[in-house]
Amino acid sequence: MGEICQCLLVTNMCRFLVYRGAPVFMEELVSTPAHSLIHQSLHAHEAKTETNGDGFGIGWYGERKKPGLYREILPAWSDENLRSLCSQVRSGLFFAHVRAATGTATTRANCHPFMHDRFLFMHNGQIGQWPSVRRQIESLIPDNLYNCRNGSTDSEAIFLTALAMGGIADPLLGVSRALGAILELMQRAGSQAPLRFTAAMSDGERIFAFRWSSDARPPTLYWREDAGELVIVSEPIDERHDDWHAVPAGHALVAEPGAAVRLIPLVPVMHEDAELAVS
Amino acid sequence: MGEICQCLLVTNMCRFLVYRGAPVFMEELVSTPAHSLIHQSLHAHEAKTETNGDGFGIGWYGERKKPGLYREILPAWSDENLRSLCSQVRSGLFFAHVRAATGTATTRANCHPFMHDRFLFMHNGQIGQWPSVRRQIESLIPDNLYNCRNGSTDSEAIFLTALAMGGIADPLLGVSRALGAILELMQRAGSQAPLRFTAAMSDGERIFAFRWSSDARPPTLYWREDAGELVIVSEPIDERHDDWHAVPAGHALVAEPGAAVRLIPLVPVMHEDAELAVS
Amino acid sequence: MGEICQCLLVTNMCRFLVYRGAPVFMEELVSTPAHSLIHQSLHAHEAKTETNGDGFGIGWYGERKKPGLYREILPAWSDENLRSLCSQVRSGLFFAHVRAATGTATTRANCHPFMHDRFLFMHNGQIGQWPSVRRQIESLIPDNLYNCRNGSTDSEAIFLTALAMGGIADPLLGVSRALGAILELMQRAGSQAPLRFTAAMSDGERIFAFRWSSDARPPTLYWREDAGELVIVSEPIDERHDDWHAVPAGHALVAEPGAAVRLIPLVPVMHEDAELAVS
Amino acid sequence: MGEICQCLLVTNMCRFLVYRGAPVFMEELVSTPAHSLIHQSLHAHEAKTETNGDGFGIGWYGERKKPGLYREILPAWSDENLRSLCSQVRSGLFFAHVRAATGTATTRANCHPFMHDRFLFMHNGQIGQWPSVRRQIESLIPDNLYNCRNGSTDSEAIFLTALAMGGIADPLLGVSRALGAILELMQRAGSQAPLRFTAAMSDGERIFAFRWSSDARPPTLYWREDAGELVIVSEPIDERHDDWHAVPAGHALVAEPGAAVRLIPLVPVMHEDAELAVS
Repeated sequence: MGEICQCLLVTNMCRFLVYRGAPVFMEELVSTPAHSLIHQSLHAHEAKTETNGDGFGIGWYGERKKPGLYREILPAWSDENLRSLCSQVRSGLFFAHVRAATGTATTRANCHPFMHDRFLFMHNGQIGQWPSVRRQIESLIPDNLYNCRNGSTDSEAIFLTALAMGGIADPLLGVSRALGAILELMQRAGSQAPLRFTAAMSDGERIFAFRWSSDARPPTLYWREDAGELVIVSEPIDERHDDWHAVPAGHALVAEPGAAVRLIPLVPVMHEDAELAVS
Repeated sequence: MGEICQCLLVTNMCRFLVYRGAPVFMEELVSTPAHSLIHQSLHAHEAKTETNGDGFGIGWYGERKKPGLYREILPAWSDENLRSLCSQVRSGLFFAHVRAATGTATTRANCHPFMHDRFLFMHNGQIGQWPSVRRQIESLIPDNLYNCRNGSTDSEAIFLTALAMGGIADPLLGVSRALGAILELMQRAGSQAPLRFTAAMSDGERIFAFRWSSDARPPTLYWREDAGELVIVSEPIDERHDDWHAVPAGHALVAEPGAAVRLIPLVPVMHEDAELAVS
Repeated sequence: MGEICQCLLVTNMCRFLVYRGAPVFMEELVSTPAHSLIHQSLHAHEAKTETNGDGFGIGWYGERKKPGLYREILPAWSDENLRSLCSQVRSGLFFAHVRAATGTATTRANCHPFMHDRFLFMHNGQIGQWPSVRRQIESLIPDNLYNCRNGSTDSEAIFLTALAMGGIADPLLGVSRALGAILELMQRAGSQAPLRFTAAMSDGERIFAFRWSSDARPPTLYWREDAGELVIVSEPIDERHDDWHAVPAGHALVAEPGAAVRLIPLVPVMHEDAELAVS
Repeated sequence: MGEICQCLLVTNMCRFLVYRGAPVFMEELVSTPAHSLIHQSLHAHEAKTETNGDGFGIGWYGERKKPGLYREILPAWSDENLRSLCSQVRSGLFFAHVRAATGTATTRANCHPFMHDRFLFMHNGQIGQWPSVRRQIESLIPDNLYNCRNGSTDSEAIFLTALAMGGIADPLLGVSRALGAILELMQRAGSQAPLRFTAAMSDGERIFAFRWSSDARPPTLYWREDAGELVIVSEPIDERHDDWHAVPAGHALVAEPGAAVRLIPLVPVMHEDAELAVS
């Protein structure tokens, strides 16, 4: 109960993709037959993981500050609405996510990306033993953000916690504090389970991608930059192996407009700062 | 955001039905054309309310202690699965509920009845200004039950609170304490909005139905007993007006096996008792 | 079985809207609270009809020849995906439709608009006694188009028949022939039931709207032109009564780029022409 | 377009199960963790096939002549309604089917089992090049049965054709004639594609299971009889290899009440008989 995107067989389960560049029809990376996220999720070539059939979501920035959001609990590959949307809508910055959950309810509210105001967030990983620490971790979220919580996943809780802890102004700081605060609560609860966090977040201008784990198994994270187009993925979506760069464990990738991609160490910020941030 | 089953036009919105008696195919009261809950929800003869098209649920007791549960977000009248299920399954004790929500997400997890272990619960009413008190009210639910919370409704929160406050052994006491504790939190938060509570609960043997409101408008509740069959409804489902008895405001109906239906005053139990119950 | 959008209480059941003009966010006419198709479908002010809760669809022309299509069986008012899509996507030519079906399966494939290549089509009306003539009418559709038939509605059958009978080059002619051929088959089958046809069709440039019935009750059809914006609706969506013009029974409205709206008599073309067209 | 349950990689895609014996909770064979159809569909141990995530259905015989039917387009493993239903309902004769479709719409109407009156039918296989022969094959179905066609699959067409060709009285004869008539139409259309047919059918008393193909690759079919319980499966659901008997290609398994299972050669009946049967 409660664990979303949990690891089966010690492999990561969800897959995601971020695109930033000249506006393209989203289908090019999301739903076309050859090398797209949906294709990958259906076929799972490398046989490491189960098929990702437990919900799908895309979030895209268009003319407005607030992004568009489409989430569905059907398998992505059988959703004509998704295919049509991706063939019609161009975006210069979008998120896509396919989810694999086992044993938990599949609802739209539990599908990634999560949206708050102009922010998008998606996650592959887990708060270990989530049911036993859910309550304490939700208590990190202040009331105004808590009322925006629609689902029951650990992922959405991390997102709202990060926003509350300074993430609106500085997503990297917010995430660092959220990871620290969550780690502390897990330790206080005596949890032996890992906190694994590979994720992406954007405010519509800057992109942050994160790869961190409390154990030695952070889910993978790759990026490719080519002719002004940045693609960030949980796993490579094509065979151009040389072009994909792994984000090192314990690092964040920061992509700001007009600047080169930077890799920055990601370190959970413990106790004192976190408490200050909430108040 | 957040308010479920909220009153539009100061009328109640959800409809429900409880049956207890000789095992019957559920369709007789749920889905047959003439006088059933679905028919009523589609047509809303008395024109007081909107059509109830935002989800449906049935919970039924069969061979096992734990009841069956079927909840769907399609309008009930277009769900062939529901019709087939109700035409095949007999039950001697079942709940059915049609929901009308406006402005909030329609998910299965927010549909009534709610189930916990052998208990079923369904509700028509509201915690006024739910978003502003959601957090505090959820804090009434202890961890073990909180992990069973899958949705975001006020109704589910009342249910779990009542179970926590002694409702597993004594549903009437649990509900009385839950209403008291919630009222206190609403007052402490300065809420001027009403707490309206017309609901039904069962452990598979006893049935409890409640009609209470902090203002003068408790949603309606009726019952009929005929040849050993008890039917409890939010609104009469047929024109046999003389047979339907209104449960008076501020009362609970208690139906125990082998005993006559009793009407008992329902009084919220405030502060001291409630605190004791949680510990 | 089989009749879609059938008349209950001799009133029309489905509602639709066409917009052509400067590209606007679709929400302005589809989903905003005050005067939009969804608002209207939920409230049904004039109390003549049931709520339209059995599926929804939008089709919009964007950068491509082929339109986008989004159809869903949830009630439109509870679909966040629809709201987000309509708040993000601008279109200068789009269709929207809410469906009310009773007794038949609600599937995406039976939701309007229907799309074929660059054409959109939506309908309010019925082929009377559809189950008894379905087979014969489907035989009007040639194989290549028949393989594009995904649902089981009379509406989709009329659309594909019209395309087959010359409608690709000349929608008005195609529809006239289709109506004629269908009428003949209905008569041959001894059907006493009416053929009612209020509909809209577009190829992405020209818009055709139709109002015709074999009895004296063609479903209503209105249009408004204002500052270069044309809106065609099954029923007015706001109280500006003077601005809405009724399309007379037995007429088609034709809106070609750069030309004034024209009203043209719509007359079913019988037998000989129709046979020629199929061959 | 159109091909359902098509073979990818020359392997069969759908999975199904029939149970007959003492009434058991359906979960025992459908949804329990270890050795059930859903477990198998999620994990696909033998790695030959894709995951079956494109719809699910169960049909069960209970107190009534007409069976119950539950079909859903969610992946079976994430559907709480299914789990609850299977944990509550006992049946002495039931069908279960998980579907894998690629490139086609996933709708309830296309999910197996199909039901007509007291008959259930489910299929793994395909009519090769279905779109090119769909029309002709549908013309084998007489009007009264055609009006019961809700979906667009080849499987449903075979079922209705078999019923029409004598299958109501004698399912084995009906299926033999339907296969013959379909083969002829495929040959007349110049189709080089195979007709593959592994299927099960019941009238609530007798069970017929079929394994036939026009090429050398009929999808697999197994059965096991043990202590009065008969289980028929497309693929074994557990590791008790010695207990599963393969139905030979070109054979039907017939299980009549109170009689031993029989294996009978299954031979398509061509032309003359088929024509007589339709008239």
